[in-house]
Amino acid sequence: MIPSKEQLEFAYKQVSPYIYNTPILTSRLLDDISGVSLFFKCENFQKMGAFKMRGAVNAILSLPPLQQQKGVVTHSSGNFGQAVALAAKNLGLKAYIVMPENAPEVKKQAVQDYGAQIILCQSTLKAREETSETIVQEKGATFLHPSNQIEVILGNATAGIELLQNQPNLDIIMAPVGGGGLIAGTALAAKYFGKNCKTIGGEPQAVNDAYRSLQSGKIEQNTTTDTLADGLKTQLGSINFPIITKLVDSIICVEEQEIIDAMRLIWERLKIIIEPSCAVPFAALLKQNKQFKKKQVGIILSGGNVDLSNLPF
Amino acid sequence: MIPSKEQLEFAYKQVSPYIYNTPILTSRLLDDISGVSLFFKCENFQKMGAFKMRGAVNAILSLPPLQQQKGVVTHSSGNFGQAVALAAKNLGLKAYIVMPENAPEVKKQAVQDYGAQIILCQSTLKAREETSETIVQEKGATFLHPSNQIEVILGNATAGIELLQNQPNLDIIMAPVGGGGLIAGTALAAKYFGKNCKTIGGEPQAVNDAYRSLQSGKIEQNTTTDTLADGLKTQLGSINFPIITKLVDSIICVEEQEIIDAMRLIWERLKIIIEPSCAVPFAALLKQNKQFKKKQVGIILSGGNVDLSNLPF
Repeated sequence: MIPSKEQLEFAYKQVSPYIYNTPILTSRLLDDISGVSLFFKCENFQKMGAFKMRGAVNAILSLPPLQQQKGVVTHSSGNFGQAVALAAKNLGLKAYIVMPENAPEVKKQAVQDYGAQIILCQSTLKAREETSETIVQEKGATFLHPSNQIEVILGNATAGIELLQNQPNLDIIMAPVGGGGLIAGTALAAKYFGKNCKTIGGEPQAVNDAYRSLQSGKIEQNTTTDTLADGLKTQLGSINFPIITKLVDSIICVEEQEIIDAMRLIWERLKIIIEPSCAVPFAALLKQNKQFKKKQVGIILSGGNVDLSNLPF
Repeated sequence: MIPSKEQLEFAYKQVSPYIYNTPILTSRLLDDISGVSLFFKCENFQKMGAFKMRGAVNAILSLPPLQQQKGVVTHSSGNFGQAVALAAKNLGLKAYIVMPENAPEVKKQAVQDYGAQIILCQSTLKAREETSETIVQEKGATFLHPSNQIEVILGNATAGIELLQNQPNLDIIMAPVGGGGLIAGTALAAKYFGKNCKTIGGEPQAVNDAYRSLQSGKIEQNTTTDTLADGLKTQLGSINFPIITKLVDSIICVEEQEIIDAMRLIWERLKIIIEPSCAVPFAALLKQNKQFKKKQVGIILSGGNVDLSNLPF
């Protein structure tokens, strides 16, 4: 079931007051290196530092007011947990974030700083899901999924919409592929707001469930989580997979060193901080450079939340 | 001898076609932390990654055409060498950059990539000056000074002019203090384009020749070069010192750890890459926070050329 253009337009209208219309950067140097006209949509400058804010805001605002008042819950030790925490705070609502006990202190702190209540659990998916379910039962809070929920996908689409409003003639729009929520939203934006604009994903070779799922036609599992791109370890879901199957033109897989090189190139040339996951589409473009030559390509820079004490270079 | 407003306006008109009018970033989070309304003028996004491009372009364009054709020479292993190289290249002119033999390969490469001719010499100021003088004699090239030359100061002033055009009500404008060329230019911009706008400098404690010079009324020497802020090791000069004496309200000295902390805060919160020297004014603002409270403060982020393999955190 593919959402309609009206649904995207409504999401755009709904989230716009609560997010930044982030800048779009260009670089003559990176254009020269790649032979491509590049437009970087800087979601690393988004509130809380990642596009996830868009999906979180849209998912919360899509709830009936009475349900909003009972709060929202998610399990995430990464950007989505922070996004739900900040979105709820900005809307004056309660958020419960389920996190594994062994989550880094800095991530717990960030969620706490955004005023959410942290509930610690064991570091298994089962424990996270059960703990979340308990909160849903006890508090009446609504569970939000980081990527496999239509309101989250529609919220994510607004980054692509803004990019295409600014650059309507893009030939291709690229995004990283993790849980599938961003690439699905981006493909929807390209379909309804682009002029014959393709959508191409970038995915780490080590966790290329989406690449293999597109090949086989069914949702494949990752066998490792062995990538630097920690935002992309998650699996596709039943709601975003049909959208991806229908609307994403291709997914390009990249090696870890290619991710590091692309990340460094953006740090050095654009002078902006992006996280490893965020460098994946640009790594993909550099790897399969031929098909992008002389095209106008938009890249969603998904986020900039990096542990500066633990850099890959 | 203080330059006139007309001289600044002419420099602004002269350099504008050859440089970026760089973006001005704000951050609610940094405003909250500091209690100040902050406006960051992002010269780290300038061509070749630093404000130095402005002074180099203005100095070259101020030469008579026939003299331009004979090329320009400077001695610098840092940003000014790169700036002269790129400015000359963009204007179709020759540049000779005198560098010490032991300059990092990456810096030699950058100058070479910009098409300039590198002349290596011993790593002493005397050797650099003599080598430069030889080029002036042999090639008829004109020597450009990184900071102690009026055309360079006027070019540097254009960053402050752009900032004040965008934010005319700034109470204070801040810049780092190294050789004195940026703070002098910034103070000129504040004088002519601000409304009662003060100029305050930030300087590393370890190389605080400017702070001491303002106190004693004569140019003091640095006794060490022992700072992470490698762009600020240089000395004040006879041309910028009178401007600084007359127009700079105060200079605040900061410790090395304060520079690192301020740099990290900007990386983490603004998600942009700045070099250590560039973090010094913000470190100064955080250190003597009280005098800035509730003020509107513009900060010139001077540059973003960092060795990512050698970060202080």
